[in-house]
Amino acid sequence: MRVLVCGGDGFCGWPTVLHLSAQGHDVAIVDSLVRRQWDVELGTQSLLPIATLPERVARWRECSGRTVRCHIGDMTDAAFLMDVLRREEPEAIVHFAEQRSAPYSMIDRQHAVFTQVNNVAGTLNLLYGIKEFVPQAHLIKLGTMGEYGTPNIDIEEGYITIEHKGRTDTLPFPKQPGSMYHLSKVHDSHNIHFCCRVWGLAATDLNQGVVYGVQTAETASDPVLYNRFDTDAIFGTALNRFIVEAVAGHDLTVYGKGGQTRGFIQIADTVRCVELALLHPARPGEFRVFNQFTEQFSVLQLAERVAAVAPRLRLRARVAHLPNPRVEQEEHYYHAVHTALIDLGLEPHLLDDDLVADLLQLAVRFSDRILAGKLLPTVLWR
Amino acid sequence: MRVLVCGGDGFCGWPTVLHLSAQGHDVAIVDSLVRRQWDVELGTQSLLPIATLPERVARWRECSGRTVRCHIGDMTDAAFLMDVLRREEPEAIVHFAEQRSAPYSMIDRQHAVFTQVNNVAGTLNLLYGIKEFVPQAHLIKLGTMGEYGTPNIDIEEGYITIEHKGRTDTLPFPKQPGSMYHLSKVHDSHNIHFCCRVWGLAATDLNQGVVYGVQTAETASDPVLYNRFDTDAIFGTALNRFIVEAVAGHDLTVYGKGGQTRGFIQIADTVRCVELALLHPARPGEFRVFNQFTEQFSVLQLAERVAAVAPRLRLRARVAHLPNPRVEQEEHYYHAVHTALIDLGLEPHLLDDDLVADLLQLAVRFSDRILAGKLLPTVLWR
Repeated sequence: MRVLVCGGDGFCGWPTVLHLSAQGHDVAIVDSLVRRQWDVELGTQSLLPIATLPERVARWRECSGRTVRCHIGDMTDAAFLMDVLRREEPEAIVHFAEQRSAPYSMIDRQHAVFTQVNNVAGTLNLLYGIKEFVPQAHLIKLGTMGEYGTPNIDIEEGYITIEHKGRTDTLPFPKQPGSMYHLSKVHDSHNIHFCCRVWGLAATDLNQGVVYGVQTAETASDPVLYNRFDTDAIFGTALNRFIVEAVAGHDLTVYGKGGQTRGFIQIADTVRCVELALLHPARPGEFRVFNQFTEQFSVLQLAERVAAVAPRLRLRARVAHLPNPRVEQEEHYYHAVHTALIDLGLEPHLLDDDLVADLLQLAVRFSDRILAGKLLPTVLWR
Repeated sequence: MRVLVCGGDGFCGWPTVLHLSAQGHDVAIVDSLVRRQWDVELGTQSLLPIATLPERVARWRECSGRTVRCHIGDMTDAAFLMDVLRREEPEAIVHFAEQRSAPYSMIDRQHAVFTQVNNVAGTLNLLYGIKEFVPQAHLIKLGTMGEYGTPNIDIEEGYITIEHKGRTDTLPFPKQPGSMYHLSKVHDSHNIHFCCRVWGLAATDLNQGVVYGVQTAETASDPVLYNRFDTDAIFGTALNRFIVEAVAGHDLTVYGKGGQTRGFIQIADTVRCVELALLHPARPGEFRVFNQFTEQFSVLQLAERVAAVAPRLRLRARVAHLPNPRVEQEEHYYHAVHTALIDLGLEPHLLDDDLVADLLQLAVRFSDRILAGKLLPTVLWR
């Protein structure tokens, strides 16, 4: 299948590009490379050194014999994006090309407005481009489980059937997102849903949980193909940050009580979920929502898991409860349905101690690149 | 009370400015005057000739002895907006300053992106400005009943209590907006709700129905104070458009079957609803939603009402069913709760034949300004 991966240079995008290419799909990338610029802005870096995008695709061609085309530009630049769609004529478009850090979006007004305008306008441009040039293309959009917040009822996959005053309807699941970034994803969801209803576009919204792990079979196969490993308090996510903190001899920074429960997924499962959505597309007019995670954990559970495995590598890790920089419930009900991708054939890789040990080992190997000054949260929600 | 009215030069904003000023509030206006520019862009005009904003406030001072300060600038210009908030220190902010036409937002990609970026970024700037400079100020935001769409259950005021799998929660009412403009209002609602939850801001979202009528006691009191009367297919709304069509000898342009049912409200009630919200503010941290309309009608009912009254002025009006330019259900269940404003003391002015006759008379008086070429819809949803 001809697949365009928007944001194909990023943490989820790059492994997806390689996985889909390895599976025989004809893959092209759209990316502005701005994620690398955010590292410059924040003074952060990937724990694993990452090659440039041209180096990456050149090496992939050497390793696999497969070509990946690159279009460097910004999705908010409509003329650029339309030109790419015209030339590539993709059958499916996987859209990761958004600012995806909650803390980054909460730095200040400028970062909030940037995040929302960037994500919403980029996605709108893509929707109009699909309508005009490739109306049959299947849009696979990365959403987030964070769109739902933590309601006191079970979270369904995108929709909920409500009985109310003797009548019934199935409606979009109510959203209570927890940051300016998460809000931008809610806006996207409403916009995409509308375009499916009105223009008959076909879209799958992958409401992904927190991703952990770093490498997939393809990214691990050569150092030039390595995936990025974000460990700082802005772009690093819970488990991955704890791994690096353990290796750095730093306290594991649990925010508040740590009872915040979320859905989690391994990066190796992310790429297969995208492939499953690709192989089983939404119908014209359908806005389909999958909750893309494999297990629920509380943040404290994850920290304790890392602390328990750390001694295997002769590391001592202590869990510390920091004042929570975010505004969120620290003890709450959480149960989210996530059966749609399983029904399509996903065989989840669950978190086990060996994976935690592997990640610790990886972090040990690159421990001279840990920036200890970037582990503590500096962005406050209030 | 010190009140800032954003969008105070517009169709709802200007009558609100005068009403609040007449009630003794200390009113200042923020407006970019862009609504007048859109008339230039579209080749349209208000049926009633309207004075410039400086002329309006000068005449109001002569008539009432009351001063209204004007700040001319754009809400997406954060430096400008922050400066106004610092200088005015409002106790309440009424925010009408958005692109508010569904057809305008559906013209093409540029107009869609403009509408969403303009509305969302302007409101975000305002939220950050309130947080920084006037955190106690009560934000009164114009939303729209169109955020809800037409669900098959009763529409509640902002929230709905859902029982699901043996558990219960009260959550934001699910949204199914019908245009890029309506979507922008849904985005605003989520953004404002978040800022109330996280920063403790106090906000009231007025989900207004379709407004009809033109003048209020204050705007009618002097020709220089006249309100704008939009009659074209882009900015004109159902009843007001039918009035002008009847006077122009044009068919009354009902889109499709005309079974589309909506909540409606007179402009004279709009200004009182805003005042009621102002006098009974939301609490810190509260995001309160009022459904601001007084009666439900189908579009066909309104056209037939105008056709029935037209002969009083020796006009002959015929209802015509046009192919619907929009994508919407033309026959559907619709029942929306709207008791919160009644509970605060609103005494609704219901639609009666005398008002229809008055509007017809007003349109007859200015019939030489009718632009017959602007009555038919040109913007298609598909």
